[in-house]
Amino acid sequence: MLAIGDELLSGRTKDKNIGVLAETLTACGIDLKEVRIVGDEPQMIADTLNTLRRSYDLVFTSGGIGPTHDDITADAVAAAFGLPISEHPQAVALLSAHYEQRGLEFTPARRRMTRTPQGASLIDNPVSVAPGFRIDNVFVMAGVPAIFQAMLQNVLPDLPAGQAISSVSIPCPFGEGDIGDPLAAIQSRHPAVSIGSYPSFQRERYSTELVLRSRDEAALAAAARDVEAMLAALAARS
Amino acid sequence: MLAIGDELLSGRTKDKNIGVLAETLTACGIDLKEVRIVGDEPQMIADTLNTLRRSYDLVFTSGGIGPTHDDITADAVAAAFGLPISEHPQAVALLSAHYEQRGLEFTPARRRMTRTPQGASLIDNPVSVAPGFRIDNVFVMAGVPAIFQAMLQNVLPDLPAGQAISSVSIPCPFGEGDIGDPLAAIQSRHPAVSIGSYPSFQRERYSTELVLRSRDEAALAAAARDVEAMLAALAARS
Repeated sequence: MLAIGDELLSGRTKDKNIGVLAETLTACGIDLKEVRIVGDEPQMIADTLNTLRRSYDLVFTSGGIGPTHDDITADAVAAAFGLPISEHPQAVALLSAHYEQRGLEFTPARRRMTRTPQGASLIDNPVSVAPGFRIDNVFVMAGVPAIFQAMLQNVLPDLPAGQAISSVSIPCPFGEGDIGDPLAAIQSRHPAVSIGSYPSFQRERYSTELVLRSRDEAALAAAARDVEAMLAALAARS
Repeated sequence: MLAIGDELLSGRTKDKNIGVLAETLTACGIDLKEVRIVGDEPQMIADTLNTLRRSYDLVFTSGGIGPTHDDITADAVAAAFGLPISEHPQAVALLSAHYEQRGLEFTPARRRMTRTPQGASLIDNPVSVAPGFRIDNVFVMAGVPAIFQAMLQNVLPDLPAGQAISSVSIPCPFGEGDIGDPLAAIQSRHPAVSIGSYPSFQRERYSTELVLRSRDEAALAAAARDVEAMLAALAARS
């Protein structure tokens, strides 16, 4: 994923799209491998996009597709692909009808939102009409969270089916320091399972959530049994 | 910044550290230029860190410095620098005293948290003692938000003084489509000022927050006057 916007780097806006994309892809069995956040700099956006689209099967971008001068994502994406950019006829039709209906002028600024690299297909925006677009393996979507989420729902049917990842979450009353050694042993016995350990610290006490994830149900169940046995042994000792 | 952890990419955990670092650096006059999020993969962490530490003056990492098998940041940082890793005597002293006081065993897992690349200096952790560390221009800090924030406060005095960025936020009752064209003209007249436009959509209506940022107070004031004049002209017209 590539999240775009000076406001994310200045702290003015706290990103909400990364977590949503991560959750949604995980539910679809698609692994999110890397996220980058960059500012409103055309060359930086284009270079980063080129790196990501060549490294990964799919890339999702957020931000920078509105009508103002700081919305430069479409141009940067076109530059990254070395493609010309122009008004997409279908986007022009959608937006001109939308503004006419609302009695608003179809200003040059608003027309900016119809510009896509040559060959792009549109991503529907049920919230505010101005579309995102897909070009090759890159999905270009809005930064406003409600719109990003709606666009993401619209592209899900186009994504390749992943193999769902199953997960088991096991609450653990011990801190990470108590379980670290036996847990490492369990992890090395179950290489097909990814075991994560997430501490929390409340009322001066540590506890931990253990999350086991795998695409292999049998391996997952076996690892979960070992973790439960470890916790029972620790409880008996304490 | 480099945020590390499978849990950020699976959506299990929603990052809270990026926004805090962004806000804090901005307040110090330091520009955050790029953020990357990667999973618990040693080579990926090391390669990404090498790219970032060579591209930027300072790099901050979050995550992966606890006592469990998935806490591999210290090793990955050592590998990135090509440095040996070993128990930091000061960290061993801190943690052994801490666990002794609490009547807890200083397990091998807990000892893992004392390991730093050769030449690293420690970053105090007032929340749960186990320290972060600095090596060269890289600050390695915890992923748990309360600890990340405490460590960040502790390293602020060591950061080079930036020139503070001033900002003016101007609420705007018009949507981006109405202001896009005149705002672009204002931006091009005031190159020393960065003008951001952030739409919101509530009760079926758009409004926009305009944020002007600059290190030049006079330029900022001049641009703000132009924006106010633009808004007054639009209000008179509507």
